[in-house]
Amino acid sequence: MRVLDLEEAIPHYRDRIGLELVGRSGDRAFFRGFDEFDRHSVILREADMPGLDRIGFKVCRDSDLEIFADRLQATGVDVEWITAGEEEGVGRKLRFAVPTGHIFDLYADMELSADGPPTKNPDVWHSEPRGMRAMRYDHSALNGIDVAGSARIFVEALDFSVTEELVDEASGTRLGIFLSCSNKAHDIAFLAGPEDAKIHHTSFRLESWNDVGNAADIISRYDISLDIGPTRHGITRGQTIYFFDPSGNRNETFAGGYDYYPDNPRRSWGVEQAGKAIFYYEKALNDRFMTVNT
Amino acid sequence: MRVLDLEEAIPHYRDRIGLELVGRSGDRAFFRGFDEFDRHSVILREADMPGLDRIGFKVCRDSDLEIFADRLQATGVDVEWITAGEEEGVGRKLRFAVPTGHIFDLYADMELSADGPPTKNPDVWHSEPRGMRAMRYDHSALNGIDVAGSARIFVEALDFSVTEELVDEASGTRLGIFLSCSNKAHDIAFLAGPEDAKIHHTSFRLESWNDVGNAADIISRYDISLDIGPTRHGITRGQTIYFFDPSGNRNETFAGGYDYYPDNPRRSWGVEQAGKAIFYYEKALNDRFMTVNT
Amino acid sequence: MRVLDLEEAIPHYRDRIGLELVGRSGDRAFFRGFDEFDRHSVILREADMPGLDRIGFKVCRDSDLEIFADRLQATGVDVEWITAGEEEGVGRKLRFAVPTGHIFDLYADMELSADGPPTKNPDVWHSEPRGMRAMRYDHSALNGIDVAGSARIFVEALDFSVTEELVDEASGTRLGIFLSCSNKAHDIAFLAGPEDAKIHHTSFRLESWNDVGNAADIISRYDISLDIGPTRHGITRGQTIYFFDPSGNRNETFAGGYDYYPDNPRRSWGVEQAGKAIFYYEKALNDRFMTVNT
Amino acid sequence: MRVLDLEEAIPHYRDRIGLELVGRSGDRAFFRGFDEFDRHSVILREADMPGLDRIGFKVCRDSDLEIFADRLQATGVDVEWITAGEEEGVGRKLRFAVPTGHIFDLYADMELSADGPPTKNPDVWHSEPRGMRAMRYDHSALNGIDVAGSARIFVEALDFSVTEELVDEASGTRLGIFLSCSNKAHDIAFLAGPEDAKIHHTSFRLESWNDVGNAADIISRYDISLDIGPTRHGITRGQTIYFFDPSGNRNETFAGGYDYYPDNPRRSWGVEQAGKAIFYYEKALNDRFMTVNT
Repeated sequence: MRVLDLEEAIPHYRDRIGLELVGRSGDRAFFRGFDEFDRHSVILREADMPGLDRIGFKVCRDSDLEIFADRLQATGVDVEWITAGEEEGVGRKLRFAVPTGHIFDLYADMELSADGPPTKNPDVWHSEPRGMRAMRYDHSALNGIDVAGSARIFVEALDFSVTEELVDEASGTRLGIFLSCSNKAHDIAFLAGPEDAKIHHTSFRLESWNDVGNAADIISRYDISLDIGPTRHGITRGQTIYFFDPSGNRNETFAGGYDYYPDNPRRSWGVEQAGKAIFYYEKALNDRFMTVNT
Repeated sequence: MRVLDLEEAIPHYRDRIGLELVGRSGDRAFFRGFDEFDRHSVILREADMPGLDRIGFKVCRDSDLEIFADRLQATGVDVEWITAGEEEGVGRKLRFAVPTGHIFDLYADMELSADGPPTKNPDVWHSEPRGMRAMRYDHSALNGIDVAGSARIFVEALDFSVTEELVDEASGTRLGIFLSCSNKAHDIAFLAGPEDAKIHHTSFRLESWNDVGNAADIISRYDISLDIGPTRHGITRGQTIYFFDPSGNRNETFAGGYDYYPDNPRRSWGVEQAGKAIFYYEKALNDRFMTVNT
Repeated sequence: MRVLDLEEAIPHYRDRIGLELVGRSGDRAFFRGFDEFDRHSVILREADMPGLDRIGFKVCRDSDLEIFADRLQATGVDVEWITAGEEEGVGRKLRFAVPTGHIFDLYADMELSADGPPTKNPDVWHSEPRGMRAMRYDHSALNGIDVAGSARIFVEALDFSVTEELVDEASGTRLGIFLSCSNKAHDIAFLAGPEDAKIHHTSFRLESWNDVGNAADIISRYDISLDIGPTRHGITRGQTIYFFDPSGNRNETFAGGYDYYPDNPRRSWGVEQAGKAIFYYEKALNDRFMTVNT
Repeated sequence: MRVLDLEEAIPHYRDRIGLELVGRSGDRAFFRGFDEFDRHSVILREADMPGLDRIGFKVCRDSDLEIFADRLQATGVDVEWITAGEEEGVGRKLRFAVPTGHIFDLYADMELSADGPPTKNPDVWHSEPRGMRAMRYDHSALNGIDVAGSARIFVEALDFSVTEELVDEASGTRLGIFLSCSNKAHDIAFLAGPEDAKIHHTSFRLESWNDVGNAADIISRYDISLDIGPTRHGITRGQTIYFFDPSGNRNETFAGGYDYYPDNPRRSWGVEQAGKAIFYYEKALNDRFMTVNT
């Protein structure tokens, strides 16, 4: 993610959201959630404008990268190989872009954190969780024009399932597509927007609705810019609060949501229920949520 | 699962645990959690002794059954094909036994429940959750002698991962093996015991620690036989309470636990920390938990 | 409280908020929270317009009524004695009006509920709490012009303390005054408004923030008209959700809030912080909350 | 409270329970909960044996001290006046002993903490709560022989109410008496024991059952000696966990419990239900809880 000022961004992600600062290197700061084993899961890069450079997904085996390269190319997607080590601690990467202009990396190897969760007679945590007590990076939602085109690649080449979608049934246009490659209700989401290569929000996992309330207290106490919440999504059923980092990137901390299995019927929302789909309690969208992204 | 008296068992599973009673047929009663799409996930059969007949796992595609049949046989496991419909609403099944004497079915097809979670502009639930508010069947823990042998089949033939194990390091004996085929900390567990084909507990998913407390209130209010809890496991980190159904089968309702990914390092517990591994707060085992099963 | 249609109001208060319906008598329905001992705590009266007829406070002893009558009269307030039994199950009452036009009754005697909380080896509840799981009536907030005048009577004649106030410091005007006669952050509140004898909301006690979330689910699932929430108040620190009954009366279900003791310093909010004072997370008021009452 | 080693005790009460360390003076350390206004609420004194020196109750007005002195003497209790300032920051005190050998102080004046909860546009907390997030000292339970005699003084001379009692109905002996001078289910409790002047536990208030779970995690993570819990009391309905400080004094952190009003019928437990009365979930007492005190 791009931030305008790394000095300002670090306390926000470390002390308020509660991530571990793994280290800094040049214009970058590396973070991981306290419950993540890998060396890092979030990289902030200081830049002239906020937003997103890339998102990475880890695959099971290095040999899977070859398979996915073939499948992506078969779907008409160009791929690029990135040498191991270009990103600190990470093996070779397979890079590709989707029609909405977002860039993704697949990789199989990453160093483990030296301070990751203990594995020998492990306690529930080693150091007390801090701030909002975010456990891990969870997902991102991305804005762009051809969301159906981007989603198709994840389904056809990468074995994601569409868990839910928001559809304008009159025109058949899909306005929001939520995709999972796990038991979570979403691992990535594409939301229709007038401009490509934009990110709507980056989301971190909390343990419970109780922690969503705690996040709200922290947001208010430290005058973090609140977007909306605490509330619940209709889509994914997640309990959530949205706010902005000092650079204007939208963050989410959320909990709950159903357990997804790939045999689940797809959930579908009509555009006339978009308010309830997005904000299950308010049943109405707000302009900021619909128009502000980075 | 076998119960001694179906009339007594139904109110326990329906009104206390909060499952939906799908229907009855002869000596059987069928249940599903309110958040499950499939027709049923738990079958109670009236019998002379409590315990477990079989556990089923659903696979993605019917053609996977052939693949798993081959892989099971390659691991030295005999398989048997069960005709579609032998179990109401379920397609053909692949049956096999493991060294600890437990019988498993794999199947790909099951009818969806007519009253399952809504999928069109869905509410968080259709009818208010009841009793302990159990969302779904979650996992079972099974007792037997050669737990390593049973676990090996799940790993080699069925793509499960060992998430955690409890090991007597002096002898190298594995006393408990926890296996996942999902993002859950366990989908099945094998626990060393002197007798094969036994079940230690059947577990249902709750939303949160708050619901574990509610389950405890219900257990006490209705004089359900408590085993232990509310407490937390060291292994899986789940927040839990154990109790017995009217036939003496041990039930668990639990929440939390970490998100598991197959690249996670294996967590390992030494037998000298078995107390903390099983009951993270009490740090001691009790005889009943260690010796009573059905 | 006045409602437009008793048939419509009863399921709202009984099944959604979760009160016990004690009985009906003519144009009235009587309710109590499941955790209240007295025969009733809320009376709904069918009428042409929503709103509030009267609020009652129970005093310790019948002889206290004489003392309070004297003290009210010494404060310049007229009192009226109401014969025992005029309200079903209630002893004699002392009635008075305050400058904001609201009418109050004091009484010492009320029949106990036949179905109240058990007192011999009592369980945490006898029947499982229902709907929003409201434990008891908690407080009301009243709108009118001379809020300082009304509050003065509660302080001088009735031994209430002002726990918090919202003040326009430029003019010295008090816009909101919160009063307690207990360890709660408020038992009654007066909010400045252009019209007298109005009620802003009637509030019911929940156990926790978790139950506030459950209330939000119920509100959305049953299409109850939401006002705002789940959120938290700056004033009283209560965790809250506001909604409307079918007649347009504003209800609140809330949890938390600090423990108040009469030696606590008074908390004070400047009008420029009114948003944060009322909605601690949103930090902004909305028109509906400020202008709609009954 | 007496502790064996102040250096060991301070991190326990400050970092684990989460109290604020107000300061040290000679052999004493002073603490307050983050949500308390008074200068201190707990004093630890280093001594040769653990246990309790005295408990103080704050009264509303200095003149009340004279009234309570008269009433105590009328009940046959000797009183002693302690000069203002004998305890740092505290006004004159009225000291008396009860038949179970415990010593109490009444006082009206105490300095406010310089770091107490903010009162001008106050946030929910100023610094993030720490450790178990204890909000305030709540109550103590005291062991001794003539518990009825001690309780009588609190009722007759000090206006406490008996909220609940545990009674051996065959002999009429009262084994536990729970007294409140507030809306809490207890402010002090007397438990029958073979030796006078003993303290069973000192209890601190948490916000919710969720925080009881968090306290359990902290207890296990830092190898604090657990007594029992998380569980719930039948008496008071509080959600609780018991543990020991490094000197062997029993601490409790708890949440919930009903709102008490002085017109509530008394709750009564028969000794044959003592297990459920004390531990609502386990329905059985354990020897340590019954016999270990300081």
